[in-house]
This record gives sequence, structure tokens and C-alpha cells, in this order.
Amino acid sequence: MSFAFDIIGTDGKARTGVLRTSRGDIRTPAFMPVGTAGTVKALTMDQVKGAGSDIILGNTYHLMLRPGAERIHNLGGLHKFSTWQGPILTDSGGFQVFSLSQLAKKSEQGVIFQSHIDGSSHNLTAERSIEIQADLLGADISMQFDECTEHPVTHDAAQASMGLSLRWGERSKTAFGTRQSQNLFGIVQGSTYADLREQSAAEVVKQGFDGYAIGGLAVGEGFEAMCEVLNYTPDFLPVNRPRYLMGVGRPLDIIESVVRGVDMFDCVMPTRAGRHGQAWSDYGAFNLKNARFRDDPLPLLAEIDCPASQDYCRAYIHHLVKCNEPLAAILLSWHNISYYQNLMARIRSAILAGKLDDLRLELIEKTTIGLP
Amino acid sequence: MSFAFDIIGTDGKARTGVLRTSRGDIRTPAFMPVGTAGTVKALTMDQVKGAGSDIILGNTYHLMLRPGAERIHNLGGLHKFSTWQGPILTDSGGFQVFSLSQLAKKSEQGVIFQSHIDGSSHNLTAERSIEIQADLLGADISMQFDECTEHPVTHDAAQASMGLSLRWGERSKTAFGTRQSQNLFGIVQGSTYADLREQSAAEVVKQGFDGYAIGGLAVGEGFEAMCEVLNYTPDFLPVNRPRYLMGVGRPLDIIESVVRGVDMFDCVMPTRAGRHGQAWSDYGAFNLKNARFRDDPLPLLAEIDCPASQDYCRAYIHHLVKCNEPLAAILLSWHNISYYQNLMARIRSAILAGKLDDLRLELIEKTTIGLP
Repeated sequence: MSFAFDIIGTDGKARTGVLRTSRGDIRTPAFMPVGTAGTVKALTMDQVKGAGSDIILGNTYHLMLRPGAERIHNLGGLHKFSTWQGPILTDSGGFQVFSLSQLAKKSEQGVIFQSHIDGSSHNLTAERSIEIQADLLGADISMQFDECTEHPVTHDAAQASMGLSLRWGERSKTAFGTRQSQNLFGIVQGSTYADLREQSAAEVVKQGFDGYAIGGLAVGEGFEAMCEVLNYTPDFLPVNRPRYLMGVGRPLDIIESVVRGVDMFDCVMPTRAGRHGQAWSDYGAFNLKNARFRDDPLPLLAEIDCPASQDYCRAYIHHLVKCNEPLAAILLSWHNISYYQNLMARIRSAILAGKLDDLRLELIEKTTIGLP
Repeated sequence: MSFAFDIIGTDGKARTGVLRTSRGDIRTPAFMPVGTAGTVKALTMDQVKGAGSDIILGNTYHLMLRPGAERIHNLGGLHKFSTWQGPILTDSGGFQVFSLSQLAKKSEQGVIFQSHIDGSSHNLTAERSIEIQADLLGADISMQFDECTEHPVTHDAAQASMGLSLRWGERSKTAFGTRQSQNLFGIVQGSTYADLREQSAAEVVKQGFDGYAIGGLAVGEGFEAMCEVLNYTPDFLPVNRPRYLMGVGRPLDIIESVVRGVDMFDCVMPTRAGRHGQAWSDYGAFNLKNARFRDDPLPLLAEIDCPASQDYCRAYIHHLVKCNEPLAAILLSWHNISYYQNLMARIRSAILAGKLDDLRLELIEKTTIGLP
């Protein structure tokens, strides 16, 4: 049974609405903080929730290797294990098995690989990926097993990769079967080739999923190529199902994607930036390590309703960053997630008000100016 | 004007009471988490406060070097800078200037040393230490400038060092002058020599301070030597003023010191242990990295009223430690501070009930047994 997706407003191709899951509503466009190993790095789940997050993402590859999917299952599933009680989307492991593991050997059946942690041997297939995601971790949204096509790639290779993902998608769907309150997303591949994207989308939609992801972007193709693919790909997908752009991105990437009809995003950007001394704002990311903040009595960003954004002066956070204090990563990650969720809320309001393009132009202008 | 110290109950030499400062009450016996560089490592001040902490400690040596005492003053003082609104006690810098700095050259005047961070040259004297603590950082309790006598040390050398600390104490007192709502503690030295401790205490008490610290312990003399010194030193101090044992310690050290009449403690133990995978309990510290916790569904310690102690299973924290996730240090530091404050609350209740020795024996027995 597909979950309800109520679109409550549109502005051009952009849509805002609510995705209703058995573990709570997801306001779209939605940003999903990445909880790689069952933790959104440097934050408690209360902080992630308090920042305005409705859903988080978990990584099948990381969790199957450590602590192990069966172990999490025996401990009550990923929600109980991580203490995150809202909806969780898991990726299929397909992307990271190629980008992180050692000696990955791909066949029609799946991928045999060695763990980057201890060299142990593993076998990931469509069936095993679904078992891990839906049965063992207990994800609210599982992703079909796929191959993330590398970039750049020839048309022939992109087509072959896309074909493999389609066959793996069919097997994922069969393995997933029919479930009461869990959902499965298909993934459109095809690299930067419009004909392949159209063909992939048509096949994936024919297979029929609860939602559709656009894969194979944010892999080095660059901002303009990404926008180009998003100019047409969402049009190949059904209006009444959520669209998820995997692994994206910076605030400008997100708003340009929303303008083109995307509903869901995930990215490690806010937490990774937070661990590297950076605070996100409409003016881009600024690095608190910079000497200009040494005596700055201003809060990180007073307009963001988050203790990390309002209660500490920049000079203090500059000091924490310089001293490598753990609190630097905590406060900056917390602020960044809050900034991202605040941006998503402004995007949703702007769509409802029919003023998304104003917000887009404001963001472009501020990014060009940089922090005053 | 000395702050009020209301002793509301005693049990043998142990006392429980309330130290009243303009920034709030301190329930004694009190444990002060160490906020070395203006942050209790890996925790927000809300977490430190929520754990039951009434007062924290700041390190003059660290703060004068980074970000600089004048800078903190210009930003509104250490309370505003760090966001800790309760009382703050600062040490004098005397201990760390010898243990951490490079090329420290001591004279009657003070210590000239090079920063361990950037090699820059600094001069710390009694007058400068008080200026940093009371005027620039704005500490509620400042410590006299002293030399922490090393261990082991000959009687002659201990006597000479003690004499220097007494002269520096007199100069600290003069520099401090009379203040409305700030306080100054003197420090008793004398190593493990009873005659020197008695002589030092007599002189320090004659000088007259708002409270008295016992310095020069927790420097490698060991548990039994520490208890031995505490068998007599508190008796040399006035009953109606707080007694502070610097740099101590483990739970057993604390309770044995309370039994001997000590009121205040500080130690990096709970936060340092937290960053090394350890959780404190009545049964000692247990290391969550240990494979025995891999599948353990129990919370860290259900009886401690702290989210970190109650809401996460040990298997999850084991996983976080194994993955070097920042959340491991956060949760374990949070739990450890909460455990310490819970222990202090039990100590205070036991004194009021006249049952401190029962608690002491229970703690000794459990420590001997280890975690069940």
C-alpha cells in the first residue's frame, strides 16, 4: 500500500505537500539529514528532530558492515537502535559498495566485495539489499538496488548500466512484495543523456513504485549538467508520487531542483561542513576558523531558531574550532541542519505563496555577495 | 565580602550544605566539571547544567593563551563567552604553567614561560593571575597563585615550595582586594608532610580567604598517601569555610575525601573517560568498546536520570565507539557527568541521613565486584 502524498500547493513545476507515513508526516520539499552509521554525526536525535527534520537517511552499506544488519534487527530495528522514532529512508548500498569497498566484483547477480573496514567478504544483491533495508533495519522507505552510473560515461556504458539497474529494480520490487506500512522507491538512471533518462523513467514507472528517485547525479557532473538533467527528467515521472534527488546538495542545488519539480533531498553537506568549521547561511558557507571572526560578538545566524545559531557568539565558535574542541563540530552541525531545515520551510512557504522564484533570486544574489 | 556557606548537616567529619553565590547556590559536597578552554569537552552547557552541575571550573592557563583573557573580557567575560550562567571557579594557572608550558622559568616574581601552543612568551605572576581570573574572566571564585609542589619531593624542597606559595598567596590577596560578589580561595601546600601541611594551613588561614583548597594532591602520590594527608589537613582549616580538594578524582577518591571533611572537587575524569569509551558507575568505569557490550540491549545505567544514561542501549554506544562517532564521546561524557552529579547527590543525602559510611562501603564493595 503506497503512502499518501498530498500536494497542497504548486508554483510552476515546484510542489509542496505532505508525505504521510505510519511514523509521521514528512513535509515536502524535504531535506533528510544523513545518519550514515545510525547517527547523524555529532548530534543527538533530539537535536536533529528539534532542528525541524521529519525524516533521516540510513546507509545500508555502512550498517551491514558495522554493526551488522542482523544485529540491529535483534536489537529491535534501526529506529529503536538509533532512537530516531520518525520515518527513516535507507539507501540500497549500491552507491557505496562501488565508491568505498575494496575489490568489488559486479555480475548480473549482484556485487561481491570486501569491507573497507576489515577486508571481510560480502555479497550484496537486490534481494539481500531489500532484506537488509525492509526486514532487518525496518526502513519506512527502502530504495531499489541499483548501480550508480559513473561520470563521465559513454552513451553505451550508461545504457548498459541503466539496463542493469532496471533489472535489479524489478528484482527489488519482487523481493519487497506487498507491505502494509513500508514503501519502496525506484531509481531513474541514464546519466546526462536525455533519451536514456526518458527510457529509464518509462520503465521504472511501468514497474511501479511508491516514489521515484533520480540517481546518478551529484557524482561530479557539475551544477549546470545537473540542472540540465532536471529540466526534463521530473516530467517523465508521475505527478502524484514523490521525487527524490539522491545526494544533493548545497542550498542553491536544492532550490534549483525544487524549481524543477523535486520533492526530497539528502546530503552529508551540513554535517560534514560542520565538522570542518563551516557554517551555512544564505550567503554560502563561512569558515569560523577565519581570523575575521576572532572578536565577532554576533551569533552564528540570529534568524535561525536553534540554540546553536542564536546562543553562542562567533568569536566563541572561532575559539572552539581553533582548539579542535568537540563542541565546535556539535554546534556547527546543529546550526547547519537547522539552517537547511529553515531553508526548506522557507521554500515550502514560498511555493504556497507563489513566490519561489523570488526566494531563488534572493539566494543567488546573497551567495554572490557573500557574508556581509 | 565572603559568600555564605550554610552547613545543613554533618556525619562525622563530613558536611553537607549550600554555598551561596550571586550567580546561584552550590550544593556541597560539590563536583565541578572542568571547562578547560571555556567548554566542558563534548557537551553543551545545557547538558552540563541538566546533569545537576551547580558550578564549573575554567583554566586560566588555557584561556590566557587561547583565546586570550583580554579578548574574553572584551566579549563580556567568561560567563557570557561560554554561555555558562552559573558560578565559575578558575584555577590560578600555577599548576598548568609547570605541567604544560615550555621553558618555564620560575622566580620570586612569578613564572616566565612559552606557550605549548605557539611558543609565544608569557609572564604569570600572582597579580596577573588575579587580574585574569577576577577582572578579565570574571570568575566567581578565584584561586591564589601558587606552585603545585611536585611528588615525590624532599621535606626541604616541599618547605621551600610551600613558602613561595604562601608569599604568592599574600600577593594574590592584596591584588584581589575587597570585592562585592567575587571570592578568593587560599591553597594549603606541604606535600605529604604533616608538619608542613599544618604550618601551611596556619599561615593561609591567618592570611584569611573565602575558602581553602588543599593543593598538591592527585599528583601521583597514590590513593593511600592522599587519604593519609586528608586524615589531618582538613582539621587545620576553619569549620565554617568551604574546603576544596583540587584535581580529585575517581568516585572512591571523592567519597573518602568527603568522609574526611572535603566539600568541593574538580576532575577531568568523567569527560576524559567519556572520550575514551568509558562509562562510570558504582562498579567502576566500564569500557563500551569491549565486545561484551556488542549485543547488550540494556541502557548505560537506567538509574541515572539523564537521556544518555537511559535512552540508548549499550550495543548502540559500543557501535558508536567502534566507529569513532562523535556521538560516542558526547553520550559517554554526558552520562559520566550525570553519574558524578548523581553520586554527589547521594553523598549529600547520606550525610543528612547519617549514613555516609554505608554508602562508602557499598561503593567499595561494588568497585571490587565490577559491573555485573
